[in-house]
Amino acid sequence: MLPELTRILSPYAGHARIIGLTGSPGVGKSTSTNALIGELRRRDQRVAVLAVDPSSPFSGGALLGDRIRMGDHVLDPGVFIRSMAARGHLGGLAWTTPQALRVLDAAGFDVVLVETVGVGQSEVEVAGQADTTIVLLAPGMGDGIQAAKAGILEIGDLYVVNKADREGADKVRRDLRSMLGLAERRDGAWKPPVLKTTASTGDGVEEVVDAIEEHGAWLLESGELTRRRVRRARNEIETLAMTALRRRWGTVGESDRLDDLAAAVVAGDTDPYAAADSLL
Amino acid sequence: MLPELTRILSPYAGHARIIGLTGSPGVGKSTSTNALIGELRRRDQRVAVLAVDPSSPFSGGALLGDRIRMGDHVLDPGVFIRSMAARGHLGGLAWTTPQALRVLDAAGFDVVLVETVGVGQSEVEVAGQADTTIVLLAPGMGDGIQAAKAGILEIGDLYVVNKADREGADKVRRDLRSMLGLAERRDGAWKPPVLKTTASTGDGVEEVVDAIEEHGAWLLESGELTRRRVRRARNEIETLAMTALRRRWGTVGESDRLDDLAAAVVAGDTDPYAAADSLL
Repeated sequence: MLPELTRILSPYAGHARIIGLTGSPGVGKSTSTNALIGELRRRDQRVAVLAVDPSSPFSGGALLGDRIRMGDHVLDPGVFIRSMAARGHLGGLAWTTPQALRVLDAAGFDVVLVETVGVGQSEVEVAGQADTTIVLLAPGMGDGIQAAKAGILEIGDLYVVNKADREGADKVRRDLRSMLGLAERRDGAWKPPVLKTTASTGDGVEEVVDAIEEHGAWLLESGELTRRRVRRARNEIETLAMTALRRRWGTVGESDRLDDLAAAVVAGDTDPYAAADSLL
Repeated sequence: MLPELTRILSPYAGHARIIGLTGSPGVGKSTSTNALIGELRRRDQRVAVLAVDPSSPFSGGALLGDRIRMGDHVLDPGVFIRSMAARGHLGGLAWTTPQALRVLDAAGFDVVLVETVGVGQSEVEVAGQADTTIVLLAPGMGDGIQAAKAGILEIGDLYVVNKADREGADKVRRDLRSMLGLAERRDGAWKPPVLKTTASTGDGVEEVVDAIEEHGAWLLESGELTRRRVRRARNEIETLAMTALRRRWGTVGESDRLDDLAAAVVAGDTDPYAAADSLL
């Protein structure tokens, strides 16, 4: 079913601009998404939003709060909003996001916004899926060392300090600029701008969309767009191949080969490397 | 080299209690680790700490701040502290942590504390590696919905509200208790306690170590310890097998099969499923 759909949709995909939006809980991602949709709609762009909800990896549930915060655009036919739970462990986001993106892309949306919560892993995964990755911050969410620890300094194409009306916004912006300034960049490389918004009032959102468009132009000129899409395809192929293998290694008929090997490792009858070898 | 080491060390491992400690940036993980080491040492336990640093997934660097915060125990020969960067994408933590845990376990430490920053993915990975997972929170880090979004409600065996001297600590504790109370649990299942600490002064740390010991006793009685260790071995075998496969799929001689297939997908000559099939 899914392989068939992928084959049918693939020729129609590749036109949408994929924008990733990520940041820690509480920085105002949903409100920012809502404001970005508004500005993109004013520029006549059809917008799809994929809110990837890491909520529970076990139950796969999704919460309603975010959907409510994006409620401005519920009745607009040029806007499509969908929440998705990042289920499971290996390849949660990596597995399902490309499939969803392909459908939205093939459906003719100009922009697909992928919104995700995360410090670390899921941010990196979003960066891997998007053409342009926006990292959202807010004042009072921890000092510079914490930002560096969260590993956000290398994944953003655009940094936005939201809640700019709060105390400390300028300091966050300044600190971030100086940390980004320390990174070595090749000639002709993109220098991520650090912008300020108050998403709840819309202040600064126009400049963010301008910066998205500038980054889009740079992606095309520099050839980076193709490089990113090849990398994305590479990851997707690999994930699909691995998922197929995991199925093969799991329950086949009556026995679960992996479980049997794991029990043998715990009992001390074999070691993990030898077990992996016998699996292959 | 590594397979050989694994084979040699495996018979000596399996005795250490693996404790995972996780929480968002800024909740006080390093200070808590420092305080826990102190209390465990008072109980004559040899303690190893593995601080898994998600920092940059690209550069793999580790920051010094945490090491400084654990400085109380630098000269104690019964304490070993090591930082590790969670390099790479697939199997960052999953790949390297079991190896490091095996060495520390075989070296005779009674307790191995695995400390990691993370909201979402890395927390789940820590929960997968540990016998007992402690989730650390602090007041002022976002409301209940944010906690639920971060997906922490199903992974903790123990919840600790740190910075208990700050305003709001009791509310965090109360909210967390009521959210945890909503979860369905089987008869005889472990009910995660929610404790309070001020790690900087040591207040409440004794109770945390008591709770770790209670959970340890429950793990043994209920048979859950073996189940968790089998699951862990299962994940490790799978990760090793997949890593071996990824090597195989990567550069072999002059060509990179995955890159060639990815370029074909982007060019529209094939689709990801067909490419994955041809890889297998």
